[in-house]
Amino acid sequence: MIKAGIIGSTGYAGAELARLLYQHPEAEVVWYGSRSYIGEDFSSVYRNLFRMVDAKCLDDNMEALAEEADVIFTATPQGFCASMVNDNILSKTKIIDLSADFRIKDVKVYEKWYKIEHKSPQYIPEAVYGLCEINRKDIPGARILANPGCYTTCSILTLYPLVKEGLVDPDTIIIDAKSGTSGAGRGAKVANLFCEVNENMKAYGVTNHRHTPEIEEQLGYAAGREILLNFTPHLVPMNRGILVTAYANLKDGVTKEQIQEAYEKYYKDEYFIRLLGHGVCAETRWVEGSNFVDIGFQVDPRTKRVVAMGALDNVVKGAAGQAVQNMNLMFGLLENTGLQQLPMFP
Amino acid sequence: MIKAGIIGSTGYAGAELARLLYQHPEAEVVWYGSRSYIGEDFSSVYRNLFRMVDAKCLDDNMEALAEEADVIFTATPQGFCASMVNDNILSKTKIIDLSADFRIKDVKVYEKWYKIEHKSPQYIPEAVYGLCEINRKDIPGARILANPGCYTTCSILTLYPLVKEGLVDPDTIIIDAKSGTSGAGRGAKVANLFCEVNENMKAYGVTNHRHTPEIEEQLGYAAGREILLNFTPHLVPMNRGILVTAYANLKDGVTKEQIQEAYEKYYKDEYFIRLLGHGVCAETRWVEGSNFVDIGFQVDPRTKRVVAMGALDNVVKGAAGQAVQNMNLMFGLLENTGLQQLPMFP
Amino acid sequence: MIKAGIIGSTGYAGAELARLLYQHPEAEVVWYGSRSYIGEDFSSVYRNLFRMVDAKCLDDNMEALAEEADVIFTATPQGFCASMVNDNILSKTKIIDLSADFRIKDVKVYEKWYKIEHKSPQYIPEAVYGLCEINRKDIPGARILANPGCYTTCSILTLYPLVKEGLVDPDTIIIDAKSGTSGAGRGAKVANLFCEVNENMKAYGVTNHRHTPEIEEQLGYAAGREILLNFTPHLVPMNRGILVTAYANLKDGVTKEQIQEAYEKYYKDEYFIRLLGHGVCAETRWVEGSNFVDIGFQVDPRTKRVVAMGALDNVVKGAAGQAVQNMNLMFGLLENTGLQQLPMFP
Amino acid sequence: MIKAGIIGSTGYAGAELARLLYQHPEAEVVWYGSRSYIGEDFSSVYRNLFRMVDAKCLDDNMEALAEEADVIFTATPQGFCASMVNDNILSKTKIIDLSADFRIKDVKVYEKWYKIEHKSPQYIPEAVYGLCEINRKDIPGARILANPGCYTTCSILTLYPLVKEGLVDPDTIIIDAKSGTSGAGRGAKVANLFCEVNENMKAYGVTNHRHTPEIEEQLGYAAGREILLNFTPHLVPMNRGILVTAYANLKDGVTKEQIQEAYEKYYKDEYFIRLLGHGVCAETRWVEGSNFVDIGFQVDPRTKRVVAMGALDNVVKGAAGQAVQNMNLMFGLLENTGLQQLPMFP
Repeated sequence: MIKAGIIGSTGYAGAELARLLYQHPEAEVVWYGSRSYIGEDFSSVYRNLFRMVDAKCLDDNMEALAEEADVIFTATPQGFCASMVNDNILSKTKIIDLSADFRIKDVKVYEKWYKIEHKSPQYIPEAVYGLCEINRKDIPGARILANPGCYTTCSILTLYPLVKEGLVDPDTIIIDAKSGTSGAGRGAKVANLFCEVNENMKAYGVTNHRHTPEIEEQLGYAAGREILLNFTPHLVPMNRGILVTAYANLKDGVTKEQIQEAYEKYYKDEYFIRLLGHGVCAETRWVEGSNFVDIGFQVDPRTKRVVAMGALDNVVKGAAGQAVQNMNLMFGLLENTGLQQLPMFP
Repeated sequence: MIKAGIIGSTGYAGAELARLLYQHPEAEVVWYGSRSYIGEDFSSVYRNLFRMVDAKCLDDNMEALAEEADVIFTATPQGFCASMVNDNILSKTKIIDLSADFRIKDVKVYEKWYKIEHKSPQYIPEAVYGLCEINRKDIPGARILANPGCYTTCSILTLYPLVKEGLVDPDTIIIDAKSGTSGAGRGAKVANLFCEVNENMKAYGVTNHRHTPEIEEQLGYAAGREILLNFTPHLVPMNRGILVTAYANLKDGVTKEQIQEAYEKYYKDEYFIRLLGHGVCAETRWVEGSNFVDIGFQVDPRTKRVVAMGALDNVVKGAAGQAVQNMNLMFGLLENTGLQQLPMFP
Repeated sequence: MIKAGIIGSTGYAGAELARLLYQHPEAEVVWYGSRSYIGEDFSSVYRNLFRMVDAKCLDDNMEALAEEADVIFTATPQGFCASMVNDNILSKTKIIDLSADFRIKDVKVYEKWYKIEHKSPQYIPEAVYGLCEINRKDIPGARILANPGCYTTCSILTLYPLVKEGLVDPDTIIIDAKSGTSGAGRGAKVANLFCEVNENMKAYGVTNHRHTPEIEEQLGYAAGREILLNFTPHLVPMNRGILVTAYANLKDGVTKEQIQEAYEKYYKDEYFIRLLGHGVCAETRWVEGSNFVDIGFQVDPRTKRVVAMGALDNVVKGAAGQAVQNMNLMFGLLENTGLQQLPMFP
Repeated sequence: MIKAGIIGSTGYAGAELARLLYQHPEAEVVWYGSRSYIGEDFSSVYRNLFRMVDAKCLDDNMEALAEEADVIFTATPQGFCASMVNDNILSKTKIIDLSADFRIKDVKVYEKWYKIEHKSPQYIPEAVYGLCEINRKDIPGARILANPGCYTTCSILTLYPLVKEGLVDPDTIIIDAKSGTSGAGRGAKVANLFCEVNENMKAYGVTNHRHTPEIEEQLGYAAGREILLNFTPHLVPMNRGILVTAYANLKDGVTKEQIQEAYEKYYKDEYFIRLLGHGVCAETRWVEGSNFVDIGFQVDPRTKRVVAMGALDNVVKGAAGQAVQNMNLMFGLLENTGLQQLPMFP
């Protein structure tokens, strides 16, 4: 059994990790870290796990945890993991960081977009960006695994084959993304109160959301050159789900068949990616509660653009599920171990 | 492997059966019956099962299905099962009926509340009421299993120990129930459109909802005499979940400790019932997607009443999950086989 | 023009007061008091009033405000108004208090249920309970107007005629109430985050919610004797609206016609009460955004109980609208001045 | 008093017309037309108007209605108005058509996108496109007023000044729009059931939604040449509101100040357009229930694009409110007569 510790277990992503790992046949949680609920029963904070999880919330002492755990998940605010990680910890355990601390290779880009100093830039080079479907081969050897962001996972997977195959003009990419409110976390903020979110639709972080450079970096690798794009997230009155609607100009003469072939080339054997094909719109309801990403697209012969649409559950494939998928790869397990929950509808 | 057929597989309860049975280690679905979608891919109607279920919707021919299936689930409108069942079918397969056709022992009561003629009253006596936690011993031998209603499951389980132990006056029972909209089914009705349900709260079926006599009959068995009670369902703008808030006058001198003891006497070893104890309110979010029933209560020393609260997922424990639980008992499996999904939050 | 000040104008009730008074032909707001947003544009906090209201948020200095205002609305937490009011203020202005400070005549009851010391018990005797439809004649002369609670307004109006006319047994009253989340206020609390409320249904404050003694006191006046009852509020995933489902045993032989007559006797000329009659269920959607209360009922001949249902918009008739209605009466205006907004659907 | 008839009064837009006209000081409804509810009380179908509107639903006989009404609103499916209008009707009354029948000048474009034959192409030339803020001067003389679509109103108003002033490249326009579900109408369809829409986000009509040519035509007038653009609508789990997020490449050197000036040039005196300025995101909650359009924008110096955002209430400014605004202009009233409802929040 893999012994896992969760730092930040009482946030939404951390609690989903707890739920997924409870059902995982090869792993068990040995540490429920929390800043706000130390000493309380974990299952009194997340009563969905009542009578299942019998453990108190502990503090977020990564040094102590490293003694006990084979892997530490840090589902924590930006900066935390970078400020705690050190050689001693890394000599004893692996880290899967759900924050952005190790996602971006250029520390100046990180510091510019996140507006904080990176406390452990020396570990950035070795950190592996854990977008499994793209980066699978590098994951098993990772000591520090940078688990991708929710928006970025959906955005990159939706566009990767098109950019990689050179079917679209990378300078024309526009990503309009919509997210359920769990993506905003469990912090007590007026902006996330029920009455503020319900019956409302808004964009936020327009032109400056911090997932932008992460998407640009990864799609830049695919394109073989630097990319600048527009990424606009929106807050939707629902709990879970991200929908990405991405636009790009087609290179001259590119057909919908070529688009379909590109998707199949990269994804047809992927367990967690379901290709809907031309003319089918991705919908968040069909992936809720699962680790699936659904991808559809539509070519517009009038404007010579493609509209590519991806949907995933931000708490699963966008956070905890992908983290477990990475853990599976890092520990030599089948990639979908413990991740075969079917989407729940309605 | 148990071969299962689902009549009415494209309703919400039927589709949840498909989802649960897909994940069931000892059963497989051999027939996706549907009236509206014959010939279509099941997974095009319920795209959550896209790439998982590879089958066309078939008609609702129970005779043909009986040749292939070890068990038939009828997730159909009232009257269908009673009009189709016959000796030949019963000689070949078992039936788990999710409709009300075989729940009520007195056919006159059935016909009065449902306002339709019962087409197979001869089978009523042998039908077993499948509320597993109360009726477990009778279920294995059943040929016709009457799967309880969603409201009734929640109402009866919430009140049963109190009535059985004589702690409350049965003539004072008032059940105020609230349900998510999936309970209204997938039929195209103006009343169930998003804009009609969202931002609204209403009662319906006041004093005449058809789950009333079912609750009265079962609690009457517990009381050892006839009971008349008020049951008021409400429609809530959410997908899943039933919350029952039940009121009853305490018999003289009854204490909260006695209430707690009664619950423990009947439920403490039940896998699917989680006792929250005195002073804790049941909430639907903590059971969503699972087969659990959460029960809490509060004694009011001022009015000498108990307020008992039960919560379940109407599509799981209130329908498909309980049906699988019954199947497990009927086929000698562990009761929670394939039903260990943890509640999903948020 | 009546000059009005609002203390607590950046809470939901206070902001609704601002909205209603903006449209009121005989009143204007001269003071937008706030604790959290002093110095900010009111319309940057409530951007629905952008370009309409051009004013900064001021502090909650009631002494200063009393110099400027003909009436002060205190939409503030319990205890604030009682701790601020004094003879000087009352000599210069009238107070309409939306908190509970002056609703309950027996200070010991107030202090027991609210668990705070009442700082101005000397003003309790003169305070008028502003449930306009019941107490209209006492309102014009009030210096301190205790604006009723949201749940209490709905509960009392739904039951008053039945209790007053002696048609039901007051010892059997059970009130099961359901409220939209705006009733929980705009404070930043985890429990009221979108993801905590959405897709959930729960009771809270069972047997001990603080609106209980207020309902008991007022219905006690109607009954001519002390009443103890059960009041159970529930939180519903919607923004606005309260639905009360009230149960009571009918006195022997009472008919639905008598119930209907009782409602008509007290309400048939009331502008803000719409009687739906026997067999029609009140729904919150039909009153949203208006000052109406819709009341329907159903007699159960089996159990000899009546189920009475009332619906209102908790922010309007349950708070700000009723406060304006009281202001109108206190200043000799037509009761529905500025309050004729029609319910908005969907 | 203007006598108004509503054909299609029991759809959401028609019912909102009824609500707005009830409160209009210079108009009254003399005919509530309906196909589904003939002979029923209008206020039993829309119980928000209970005790306010006392009228039966009549049929949709425009000939008869023309005898009684000064203006007829047709809130009907595509094709209805074109199939009914004739010289006799137009000699007696004015028509404000909320459908698309007279919005598009090129009948071939209409027939291609709507896939129906236009039955009265002879009236297309005289029909006036009623986007008041752009087309105000032509509206007073109209006999047939084509009331713009909900998405189109929001899209055009958001982009018009930028296109008209040549600040953006018209060939790069991408409009990503999000709508509440009331835009889908009150028809009984499975796709619009609560459980299908709630907890879901999806695009639909990708590359082929019928509002596309309407937007292209109107923005083409502004640009002085033909425009092709991408318009992608999405369905959001909320009742009311449209949010448009529009992207376009800036012409070389265009600054945010120029963008702001362009908006002010066209809109600064518009009662119903509220300019939020640079860096402020429009949100549907702040316009709900009102005829306002809120517009904000953000310039991206990295990609040299502008992201322009508009929000309106699809049932008001996107349908019934704009229709009343047009009526006001056609009858020489102040444009905002009866349309000064403030947005309601929460």
